[in-house]
Amino acid sequence: MALKIACGQIEIIAGRPDLNTKKILHHMDMACQNGIDILLLPELAVPGYFLGDLWEQTAFIEDCAAYGDEIIAATENCGELCVIFGNIAVDNSKRNEDGRARKYNAAFAAQHGRLLTNGTLPYDFIVKNALPNYREFDDNRHFYGLRQLALELDKQVAGLHQPLTVTAHGETVKLGLMLCEDGWTENYFLDVPQLLAQHGAELLCNISCSPFSINKNSKRHRLFGSAAQKAGIPLIYCNNVGIQNNGKNIFTFDGCSCVYGSDGWLLTDAPMYAEATLCAGWDSKAKAIDTSGITSDPRSEIDEVYHSLRYGCQRFLEQAGIGKMTIGLSGGIDSAVTAALFVDILGPDNVLLVNMPSCYNSPMTQTIAEQTAQSLGANYTVIPITESCLHTREQLTQTPIHSYRQHRDFQLTISPLIYENIQSRDRGSRVVAGLAAAFGGAFSCNSNKTELTVGYATFYGDICGALAPIGDLWKHHVYELGRYLNEKVFQRQVLPEAVFTIRPSAELSSEQTVGTGGDPLVYPYHDKLFRSFLEQWRKTSPAEILLWYSEGTLAEHLGCEADIISEAFPDARSFIADLEHWWKLMHTLAVAKRIQAPPIVSITRRAYGYDHREAQLTPYFPREYHRLKAQLLND
Amino acid sequence: MALKIACGQIEIIAGRPDLNTKKILHHMDMACQNGIDILLLPELAVPGYFLGDLWEQTAFIEDCAAYGDEIIAATENCGELCVIFGNIAVDNSKRNEDGRARKYNAAFAAQHGRLLTNGTLPYDFIVKNALPNYREFDDNRHFYGLRQLALELDKQVAGLHQPLTVTAHGETVKLGLMLCEDGWTENYFLDVPQLLAQHGAELLCNISCSPFSINKNSKRHRLFGSAAQKAGIPLIYCNNVGIQNNGKNIFTFDGCSCVYGSDGWLLTDAPMYAEATLCAGWDSKAKAIDTSGITSDPRSEIDEVYHSLRYGCQRFLEQAGIGKMTIGLSGGIDSAVTAALFVDILGPDNVLLVNMPSCYNSPMTQTIAEQTAQSLGANYTVIPITESCLHTREQLTQTPIHSYRQHRDFQLTISPLIYENIQSRDRGSRVVAGLAAAFGGAFSCNSNKTELTVGYATFYGDICGALAPIGDLWKHHVYELGRYLNEKVFQRQVLPEAVFTIRPSAELSSEQTVGTGGDPLVYPYHDKLFRSFLEQWRKTSPAEILLWYSEGTLAEHLGCEADIISEAFPDARSFIADLEHWWKLMHTLAVAKRIQAPPIVSITRRAYGYDHREAQLTPYFPREYHRLKAQLLND
Repeated sequence: MALKIACGQIEIIAGRPDLNTKKILHHMDMACQNGIDILLLPELAVPGYFLGDLWEQTAFIEDCAAYGDEIIAATENCGELCVIFGNIAVDNSKRNEDGRARKYNAAFAAQHGRLLTNGTLPYDFIVKNALPNYREFDDNRHFYGLRQLALELDKQVAGLHQPLTVTAHGETVKLGLMLCEDGWTENYFLDVPQLLAQHGAELLCNISCSPFSINKNSKRHRLFGSAAQKAGIPLIYCNNVGIQNNGKNIFTFDGCSCVYGSDGWLLTDAPMYAEATLCAGWDSKAKAIDTSGITSDPRSEIDEVYHSLRYGCQRFLEQAGIGKMTIGLSGGIDSAVTAALFVDILGPDNVLLVNMPSCYNSPMTQTIAEQTAQSLGANYTVIPITESCLHTREQLTQTPIHSYRQHRDFQLTISPLIYENIQSRDRGSRVVAGLAAAFGGAFSCNSNKTELTVGYATFYGDICGALAPIGDLWKHHVYELGRYLNEKVFQRQVLPEAVFTIRPSAELSSEQTVGTGGDPLVYPYHDKLFRSFLEQWRKTSPAEILLWYSEGTLAEHLGCEADIISEAFPDARSFIADLEHWWKLMHTLAVAKRIQAPPIVSITRRAYGYDHREAQLTPYFPREYHRLKAQLLND
Repeated sequence: MALKIACGQIEIIAGRPDLNTKKILHHMDMACQNGIDILLLPELAVPGYFLGDLWEQTAFIEDCAAYGDEIIAATENCGELCVIFGNIAVDNSKRNEDGRARKYNAAFAAQHGRLLTNGTLPYDFIVKNALPNYREFDDNRHFYGLRQLALELDKQVAGLHQPLTVTAHGETVKLGLMLCEDGWTENYFLDVPQLLAQHGAELLCNISCSPFSINKNSKRHRLFGSAAQKAGIPLIYCNNVGIQNNGKNIFTFDGCSCVYGSDGWLLTDAPMYAEATLCAGWDSKAKAIDTSGITSDPRSEIDEVYHSLRYGCQRFLEQAGIGKMTIGLSGGIDSAVTAALFVDILGPDNVLLVNMPSCYNSPMTQTIAEQTAQSLGANYTVIPITESCLHTREQLTQTPIHSYRQHRDFQLTISPLIYENIQSRDRGSRVVAGLAAAFGGAFSCNSNKTELTVGYATFYGDICGALAPIGDLWKHHVYELGRYLNEKVFQRQVLPEAVFTIRPSAELSSEQTVGTGGDPLVYPYHDKLFRSFLEQWRKTSPAEILLWYSEGTLAEHLGCEADIISEAFPDARSFIADLEHWWKLMHTLAVAKRIQAPPIVSITRRAYGYDHREAQLTPYFPREYHRLKAQLLND
């Protein structure tokens, strides 16, 4: 007879210990009925993880503890079931370093109404050791770590990582229980999985609250697989689903709980973005894990991106009580993809698409917009902005301004750039915002990551809305997503072919149309350039870009085609001018725009907002850059 | 003969090691000329402190190290001068826990072209121990701490805090050198100042990069004074001036460097918000400090608030290259105070005030607006919004919308609330944003903290602009600042008396005017209620509010007048309805608005943004709240 272990991949709602506890109790009931011996639940399953500074509110923390006690007490009526769940643990007799009550990110193991311990801590719970403080994580802000505790207890931290013995029906397993980051041991001082194995663990269990990003799961497979292999024992990974946000970013939690064998191979996994129970058997005689052996097929990157965005947007709208969306539809790729995404989520009746032409909008883009609305079956309207913009121009330039100090009147003039922004704000803040309110619901920001990087967008014009669904997608991602929506999601051409082939343009002046200049960005190059500034592990600087340019290795380093660079920039002078122009914008005005941008659904490793954090600074070029520039321009 | 010690309270520009190094070298020159033996400079004087994730850019870090080397090398030509400065220290042979190059927040002491060390570390610099991770601080995100290093070195961290011996002209002093937070020892595991004293330090030196907040300096005097007294030796505190931001918040660095005697008393201090050199003599025979003994007069709270806002706004505009400001002037207190503040900073010729009446605006507020503009001597214009709003209403309600799925047309209607928001956005995003661009410069967000708390403001209407100067001021603070501007700054009634006495109102509908309903907020109560949710050390929850209400101690707990509460809420039911209404808004829609709000000039302990961090959540009321509510309503 084997111990039956279940991994409860549940949806956690941040900041709702009441709802999460209800769900956990329900899963415990089901586990009981199904003869489960050990039920694993995710990290911080009671409170949620990304709560901002709600962690400082005593009443909330006390509730989480009380709900935790309910869960522990409930095991009294669950036979032999041992439930293992993440919760915040509070010790009011001690202080965190901010002076508030001591808080641990902890794992609780309860059976027969009591907590099981490994006997090494002054507490009856397991304390997270590795506290991540990078990307969107702020663990040290709120939690006291095992390493800090060890110092306080004057003990070696390694000795505090001990397995937990769980017995049910006479069968026993020594669980190497750890919390999330304790399994990502690359850069930390201690290798927690190996310590647990050395101290006798027979089965590693990692309970996590781990958000999705592109390539995260393949990295996890590599790290967790090799940890299991190195320890020579199996590893169960339990993650939650749902969304959580940190204000500026909406993160999706993908689940994908799984079991690795003692050889490091993936044995079985739970689905992405769906609640599920993943089961395994533990043979305590053979010290071996038994699973059904089914694993999901690997997904393509764009498939993962689509599912993440769809799930993230859908859950965010649901949480915010938004059932209808209005989208400004220009005839370009960004708004078309956004429109299709929301029609996919909400259905065509709940999506209102609006085209807002001025004299600068070509009949071609207007036709594409109409075709898109038609093929999506959505609601569609056309509201011209010409009259309103002319009225604004007249008011701003014809109304006298009186200087009380100089006792004189004067009038203002409006430059073409100012008039471009007036048009953009007229669309976003006047028409779309007003229509969205009247239609009932919200509207979306259709900016992509390339535009957001350099602030190629207008404050309160196109940077506005309840959320930015494609704000973490480079322009080439947006095109890929468009193709995917046609081919895989709708399985027909909902986005007309012209939307993929038309030249991207803001259509805000006679110089900036699909027929004339188009956008000032050479997307196949700038996508990769900006990505290297932001997402590359070793973030590049203009100095490296210039070095690679002078060596002729830039295209290779960035991963774009060499012709694109040489065609766009005939000489070093024009290349440098472009580089400096965008580098300066990226760190000044574009930051100001991002500070006021809507929340971004995050999918990459480094989304703007709370993942990649920024200060508004003055432009700075490295010393090496100045040297290389002088060299290049003198050659 | 005594050692001459100077504290260089310099302005640091975040992210500009080139400019900061230039300034430091200049101060070293001056120190040389003035016979200074030891020149103290602030923490992270080379790179700045609040840089967001610029800390991850290798080229930037390498430049900071190279500039640091320049400073060290420059001491070769500075006679006996020992310069002590803060900089980032990088060890490329080791990793931070995020996997990037190891970085320390460090203090360097250089003399004769070489670094002085205390001999206990594998480095020739001092490493910060206490890394703050609360409020706006993210030290663990970027820096490796002394405690972590001690664990890695397998040493006791206490033993690593050793004094640094500095000798000049045959005179010697053992400096207890520490970085910022290492002096704020209340809640940390180690008491760094006492350890340094126990290990032989004769004089404590704290180099800081410490932003202003109300009451910070009195707390520092208490903590640092008692540290000096407990250690029985003097303490020198060296802080910088300037502004730095973390995206959502602009922080001012107040300087206020000072010297505490061995009895804990303040001996001398440098001015607030001004570059200065503070000098002291060290008698190495008598082990005694000698200062000029002059200390500044204590300032009132509102005086500090005014100077912080003025300095913060002035420096922020300067950094962003903004020389002119446009302000929507409603006739209410918030915009009037903002207008006066910018006239004070930029002069009346560089400020454009615009009143934007609709049919709901009373002649009274229009007159107040005009009077305010006149008394300030500013530029003033009146741009009505009626025609534009009617046009918008007509377009939104008369234009047919076609449903491609249902093959039918329909039209939308607009509720009074929607029309209110249309007016607000018309003012902010159409008129003020357009005027500001035409006038040349930017515009301000006039929202106060009370409004921002519950989102009593419109997206892209009044929540927009380059910065929110009074976004960290409760309504009562705004009134106080208005009085202060009249009495102390302009020394005449620039803000008309009526602006202080008129009933606050948004004037967006016939129900919401200065003559009828006014704002739904009872400011003398809600100011204090919201403050208790946010700024109180032990953050209150609705449960505590209800408990105090039922006990009759609420006014006392909040610090407001009891009559105000009983007058505003005749019974428990109405009190509860109000409490729940605002509590829900505060955690849902108001968070969404704050996420897109402009940067706030921060003055309190808990400004919205990066100081008080937030997730958008669904409303949660503690269990105890439900119990108390049922009890109250059943009584």
